[in-house]
Amino acid sequence: MAEAEEIKTREGAKQSLREVTALLQKQRLIEELVHKQQMPRHELVESLVHKQNLAKLRNKLDELHPADVAHILEALPLGERLSVWDLVKAERDGEILLEVSDAVRETLIEHMDSEELLAAAETLDTDEIADLAPDLPRDVIQELLLSLDVHKRARLQSALSYPEDTVGALMDFDMVTIRSDVTLEVALRYLRRLGELPDQTDKLFVVDREEGALVGVLPLKRLLIHDPEVHVAAVMADDPVTLHPGDQAAQAAQAFERYDLVSAPVVDEGDRLIGRVTVDAVLDFIREESDTDLLNLAGLREEEDLFSTVWKSAKNRWMWLAVNLCTAFIASRVIDLFEGTIAKLVALAALMPIIAGIGGNSGNQTTTLIIRALALGQINVGNARQLVTKEVGISLLNGVVWGSAVGLFAYALYQQVSLGLVMASAMLLNLLVAAIMGILIPLGMHKLGRDPALGSSVLLTATTDSMGFFIFLGLAKIFLT
Amino acid sequence: MAEAEEIKTREGAKQSLREVTALLQKQRLIEELVHKQQMPRHELVESLVHKQNLAKLRNKLDELHPADVAHILEALPLGERLSVWDLVKAERDGEILLEVSDAVRETLIEHMDSEELLAAAETLDTDEIADLAPDLPRDVIQELLLSLDVHKRARLQSALSYPEDTVGALMDFDMVTIRSDVTLEVALRYLRRLGELPDQTDKLFVVDREEGALVGVLPLKRLLIHDPEVHVAAVMADDPVTLHPGDQAAQAAQAFERYDLVSAPVVDEGDRLIGRVTVDAVLDFIREESDTDLLNLAGLREEEDLFSTVWKSAKNRWMWLAVNLCTAFIASRVIDLFEGTIAKLVALAALMPIIAGIGGNSGNQTTTLIIRALALGQINVGNARQLVTKEVGISLLNGVVWGSAVGLFAYALYQQVSLGLVMASAMLLNLLVAAIMGILIPLGMHKLGRDPALGSSVLLTATTDSMGFFIFLGLAKIFLT
Repeated sequence: MAEAEEIKTREGAKQSLREVTALLQKQRLIEELVHKQQMPRHELVESLVHKQNLAKLRNKLDELHPADVAHILEALPLGERLSVWDLVKAERDGEILLEVSDAVRETLIEHMDSEELLAAAETLDTDEIADLAPDLPRDVIQELLLSLDVHKRARLQSALSYPEDTVGALMDFDMVTIRSDVTLEVALRYLRRLGELPDQTDKLFVVDREEGALVGVLPLKRLLIHDPEVHVAAVMADDPVTLHPGDQAAQAAQAFERYDLVSAPVVDEGDRLIGRVTVDAVLDFIREESDTDLLNLAGLREEEDLFSTVWKSAKNRWMWLAVNLCTAFIASRVIDLFEGTIAKLVALAALMPIIAGIGGNSGNQTTTLIIRALALGQINVGNARQLVTKEVGISLLNGVVWGSAVGLFAYALYQQVSLGLVMASAMLLNLLVAAIMGILIPLGMHKLGRDPALGSSVLLTATTDSMGFFIFLGLAKIFLT
Repeated sequence: MAEAEEIKTREGAKQSLREVTALLQKQRLIEELVHKQQMPRHELVESLVHKQNLAKLRNKLDELHPADVAHILEALPLGERLSVWDLVKAERDGEILLEVSDAVRETLIEHMDSEELLAAAETLDTDEIADLAPDLPRDVIQELLLSLDVHKRARLQSALSYPEDTVGALMDFDMVTIRSDVTLEVALRYLRRLGELPDQTDKLFVVDREEGALVGVLPLKRLLIHDPEVHVAAVMADDPVTLHPGDQAAQAAQAFERYDLVSAPVVDEGDRLIGRVTVDAVLDFIREESDTDLLNLAGLREEEDLFSTVWKSAKNRWMWLAVNLCTAFIASRVIDLFEGTIAKLVALAALMPIIAGIGGNSGNQTTTLIIRALALGQINVGNARQLVTKEVGISLLNGVVWGSAVGLFAYALYQQVSLGLVMASAMLLNLLVAAIMGILIPLGMHKLGRDPALGSSVLLTATTDSMGFFIFLGLAKIFLT
């Protein structure tokens, strides 16, 4: 894999995107000329300009880090993306496929045949193949499994068997192991003989000879500063942070954040070393997880290629729009119950969205804080009651403050004291509903073992809308008409 | 600093939280007994149980990694948090203050006097002091500056001068430098003499003797695998990824993610090495940044201590609630314009929130995708037009699909073809407004140099609400009454 040190700065990457775009634009101009028949086709094909241009583009791409090529591919519309993809050297296809986003990867894989895919996958490590696997056609995976040796095939099959959000899915197999009964001198010589260390190697894993059990880790730091004469056993850390393949990836990420790890060993139930997790995989996981939260909160099912077709994008967005439509229908039926009341006092129709809207916003604040605290493991039986007290307290305070504000506003507009009072009380009550539901919904989802970030906000808004309309119009019916 | 390897697993951290909570509960019971006068005070103070309990708690805390103590402090209500804080050894205060969240740090610092704060800060590195500085009283910072030697004082002052979201603020000064004209053997001996390497050291920085300019980096990997006889210059990477203190932290984070870095040198305009950024600082930055996005989207100004007072929490939430109240008032005035129309056909009042709601949701989907693409640097002049075409296309498709659905719904309920048609057209038009504003608002914010994640959603919903009511009621006025 290309070394990071080859690229000077991130500015360089931006510069590259500009250069590639410029070269592509030239190419497009030439093709437009041909299309408009202003230049005979054969002349173009022979044209020196055209060839030079392509060669320049290809050279530029060859120089770039796979992550930068991936970035360029993501920022290009589909047609140009595929032209650039064709120019990339076949042996780099695999590592670039790993770097692009899921949505863009799909578009690239769609345009490759089985042979190309097989060739690309064969340049990768087994854990990397496992990352690509969900997007590969079944027949390619079958052929891949056949092409691997027994050892690698077993690894790939086990890597494929771990669910997406577990440590098993983050794990790679690039670990360097040593025994505890050798001296550091021997370890140093062993490393020189290896001739290469995997990326992100900050420690060697010390395993016992017979069982393959992990007995400790030897940070490179310690290997470097201690006397070469001492034994590994004397300087290794014998109680390291270890992970299990079935652990939640989010928990592993927390361990990396808390203990500032660069890599951590993964062991099975018998304490046998089976792989490692590195900080770059954790970084990608954290980024993806927070992206997913953001997308879900906005009602998007998954990440979207910026240039995917209208049809495909629309389908991605429909699920949550449909859910929202249902909740909006329910709220609409609640309003309909009070048709008579509104007919008598049309001002109610203009004021009711205020009650519902502020309730929704305030409840969302509560829900967000609870979701975050749940994710950080800060909520337990001992402190749940205090949380409820606090949130209810805030909603009462807000109810008095904002309730008075909207009450005065309503009075000022319609010169009706009773309308102002109804408005103020409805606001207070709906903020109370918002606080209580804002806690109960995410806690309930969590208790049911579901991700509270997914759908909590929609459920909450549905409640505060319907209840807001119901409380406001109900009070109005009793006191105003 | 305590080594990560001391903690076996994350399960261990959870276990600790449970143990500390149990010990605290015992403590609370004892204190309640005293409070209820069921046990004379002096007996308690003498009580062996009480003393043993405290000693157990203190021992437990001493064993824990600072990050785990921080986690426990964050999950405890204020009173118990301060009891535990008092039990923590004074020399560990500094590193624990670094680990807790901003909101919790504030509560701890409030209860420490200047001397304690000064003592805590003096156990830290200059870059760590700079991280704490925003929360420290001015007089403590002044005293700290006086207590440092000239070199460290200059460093602290420069670290304090960098704005929060720049590389300068992420930077630390724990770098190991060597010269390029020595052999690896000499480098190895030098490291052994140092006796300790900073955490997250994956490379040595190669600087020239006179200028202090960075001429390359020597990854430990290369140091370990190459023949000790060769010179550093022969095996170093001479074109590494370098950062500048004024660079955006987000850009540095992207470089770490793309090139899988563990550490990167920071240089000034003269290419002189002034510090380094490590992946653990980047990890914290990414986590904080995505938390901030989440909080801002929910209308929270900043992170909130789970157990802060009602008054303090309410103030944190008011800014966005106030903004929302203003936009809700505007929407309310739009509805008021059509009072006559609603009076004639009250069904309109029940149907109008559907148009506004779906418009808001759909527009938020667009805005979220644009904000994300902007953050990833995927939007440029070349592809903006294609994006608009795509989003407008989706909104037209959605308009036809969902417009028909709500149109049929309205027809089914009220048996009025014209009402169904008005409903369908209003939906189509509002989805179009949502798509266009969903692109324009974040792009406009970005052009003005503001963070598009902050407030885009509020602005968008304000537009789709007001426009939704206006379009629907306007069409109704023309065609239905």
